[in-house]
Amino acid sequence: MSLDALRAALPAHVVVTAPAALDGVRADKSGHRAPAAPLAIVEAESAEHVQIAMRWASEHGVPVVPRAAGTGLAGGAIAGGGELVVSVDTMRRLLDVSIIDQSCVVEPGIRNAELNDMLASHGLWWPPDPASRAISSVGGNIATNAGGLLCAKYGVTREWVLALDVVLADGSLISTGHRTVKGVTGLDLTALMIGSEGTLGIVVGATLKLRPLVDGTVWTVGAFFDDEAIAAAACTAITAARIRPAIMELVGRDAVSMLAAYTGRAMTGAFVLVQTDDLGAEATSETVAQILSAHGGRVERTDDLSESDAPVQVRRQVHFALESFGNVLVEDIAVPRSRMADMFRACHEAAQRHGVRLVVTAHAGDGNLHPTFVFDEPEPSEAVWACANEVFAAGLALGGTLTGEHGVGILKRRWLVDELGERQLALQQAVKAAFDPLGILNPGKAL
Amino acid sequence: MSLDALRAALPAHVVVTAPAALDGVRADKSGHRAPAAPLAIVEAESAEHVQIAMRWASEHGVPVVPRAAGTGLAGGAIAGGGELVVSVDTMRRLLDVSIIDQSCVVEPGIRNAELNDMLASHGLWWPPDPASRAISSVGGNIATNAGGLLCAKYGVTREWVLALDVVLADGSLISTGHRTVKGVTGLDLTALMIGSEGTLGIVVGATLKLRPLVDGTVWTVGAFFDDEAIAAAACTAITAARIRPAIMELVGRDAVSMLAAYTGRAMTGAFVLVQTDDLGAEATSETVAQILSAHGGRVERTDDLSESDAPVQVRRQVHFALESFGNVLVEDIAVPRSRMADMFRACHEAAQRHGVRLVVTAHAGDGNLHPTFVFDEPEPSEAVWACANEVFAAGLALGGTLTGEHGVGILKRRWLVDELGERQLALQQAVKAAFDPLGILNPGKAL
Repeated sequence: MSLDALRAALPAHVVVTAPAALDGVRADKSGHRAPAAPLAIVEAESAEHVQIAMRWASEHGVPVVPRAAGTGLAGGAIAGGGELVVSVDTMRRLLDVSIIDQSCVVEPGIRNAELNDMLASHGLWWPPDPASRAISSVGGNIATNAGGLLCAKYGVTREWVLALDVVLADGSLISTGHRTVKGVTGLDLTALMIGSEGTLGIVVGATLKLRPLVDGTVWTVGAFFDDEAIAAAACTAITAARIRPAIMELVGRDAVSMLAAYTGRAMTGAFVLVQTDDLGAEATSETVAQILSAHGGRVERTDDLSESDAPVQVRRQVHFALESFGNVLVEDIAVPRSRMADMFRACHEAAQRHGVRLVVTAHAGDGNLHPTFVFDEPEPSEAVWACANEVFAAGLALGGTLTGEHGVGILKRRWLVDELGERQLALQQAVKAAFDPLGILNPGKAL
Repeated sequence: MSLDALRAALPAHVVVTAPAALDGVRADKSGHRAPAAPLAIVEAESAEHVQIAMRWASEHGVPVVPRAAGTGLAGGAIAGGGELVVSVDTMRRLLDVSIIDQSCVVEPGIRNAELNDMLASHGLWWPPDPASRAISSVGGNIATNAGGLLCAKYGVTREWVLALDVVLADGSLISTGHRTVKGVTGLDLTALMIGSEGTLGIVVGATLKLRPLVDGTVWTVGAFFDDEAIAAAACTAITAARIRPAIMELVGRDAVSMLAAYTGRAMTGAFVLVQTDDLGAEATSETVAQILSAHGGRVERTDDLSESDAPVQVRRQVHFALESFGNVLVEDIAVPRSRMADMFRACHEAAQRHGVRLVVTAHAGDGNLHPTFVFDEPEPSEAVWACANEVFAAGLALGGTLTGEHGVGILKRRWLVDELGERQLALQQAVKAAFDPLGILNPGKAL
């Protein structure tokens, strides 16, 4: 495929074909890697660059992989042979903040944490909070409808996006949604774009809904439990008591053991971390501590930031601890909160049956589990995939979903029809075709 | 069109052709009325009845108008000659409530207030709060993405729906979304269905996201202002102070005058109503009172329910007051909150230019204005439509949207392209065609 026409239409430095750069975009954070390098990367600096790239791709029938920071966990941004990467990685400006409207306008490459640092000086906050916030882009958060630790109380990305500028497969630019709090004109294409993993269009601008920073002191409660199922039941009891923690996390027994080995700190059992915020945080944290204690937890509670760091690090360091034991494959099941203990049990039973190492952590506030396989081989074995298959089936049987926040990407396509059913999958493909009749946007991903 | 095959496939009482019933579905609460009566009404009692009706309609190419309570304000549920009404009005069961999952499963015909009365006994709440909540159905709330008074703080319908059961145009039944707090498998067809005004499918079941009832005492602040623009500025100042009232409403000067005449109570000026809730409601209401007072408002503040009823009724009775002066046409512009005073001004200027009576109220917390024309003739005059046209244009020019919460229906189709642009409108029509290739679902509405 000759790139001459593309090069002619764009500034020279925008069309990148350096081997190292092409090699970099063969992977993301999923652990997967495309067998060959793509044709080129368009390092777009404006919506117009994206439009030019899409017009060229449409004309020549070249498949396009949209990409920003490349931190995805499902392979959605991996680019392979014959493909063109359209990157918005360097489109990172905060274009406008309105304190009165509590909204801002950004380019898609801006990093989540970078944006929130800038907003904090205005007393404002964009709540989506993936664990990757320091390195993931707002555009990527939108492409995957990113979640994180705060979702049960503060919602997912979809709740915090008002409007999008989108370049379609044919290179045309549309503005979806509205800059207002409410708006119901036409079909909600903004919501449809969110979580579509680059299959419908390329987001080149976003108007985000913000909220004031939360008032008051954050209280932290940590508790170790001998029994993992009881720890899960304690989390359920907190939800049933109509408490709305900012964060409620559950780290399984095996994960805690591996963390103890990794950090050299003595700790055993399953670990529950709860943070309460806003007015009433102290009283609520006291009730939380009582419930955890009544379930047999060994509880510590504090509002001292230096003390709260230790329990928070138990949660934050888990992933690094697991990686110190081998290669990892992170899964992302979500189940109704009432079925969380069942899902933990199903994971352990499946792991035992297949003789694989599977440790489980969960965003317990919203029922999103990250069962994580740890293995020595460079790639997951057949046994790992067979076990993963059973874990997915168990999640669906419990009324859950294949992916809570990471996306389908290339990892979960084979199970998609199990969740959606044939008729809905066909409908989703028809919707995709309405956006992208040539099928050039992120083929082989998500749908 | 012979109904024989339809009658043969359904229980006799489900296919209704009584003239009085057919006459009833020619109208909704928009003030519009179809010129002729539809063929029949399928009073569905189950998803299966809806499927049978859609299969028959697909086979015979008969246009279908989905309907529940018929309380819409944009004509979306009006049925005319040659059309079949598929009504879910009597499918009103609450099928399941989970306290732990904070979710419930309902049939679409259940009334919003009826549902919330049942949920309150579990300490739970479904927040969408249209002014019509006593009479409007949850299915209708979903079809229009209904808003209401509490949206700035508690969000619109889209934020509170997890999953839908939908009968498609061809009669097949799909389940969209997930029963979990998070879930990103496939395209978000649940969000796409919400606000689609019956053009994509018929909702026959919904899993709703609930939240615990809000704690504490509600504080009410009411204030009259001599100057409407200053009243709007005071509302803006409350938002700018990062206060999140549960309710913030602004009733324009003319509306207050008409209300004074209607109720016989002495009152003049523009009126602002603010309610604060949750922990800290009292302190917040004090700050609100100070801000309103500093802007020259004559302020009253109370947490006594008997006293707070008077200011709340000022807001709630406006519509009845206007109707006592003539026929009304309620508009539904939303603008960024920072442009609210500009939008009030634009309404008054347009009304003066065209010599029509236009009074304005607003959900000031979220920038959603209801400019309301009051006239003696049975139908809006040319001058009213010309003025409405200018009001819409002004709203769009201020970065706003044609409809904040009522929907497009038949009322606003002619202005749709002004907001969406030609390319997006074509894309929306292509998405519609993916769902409904024969174009039988609510033709002539919304898109």
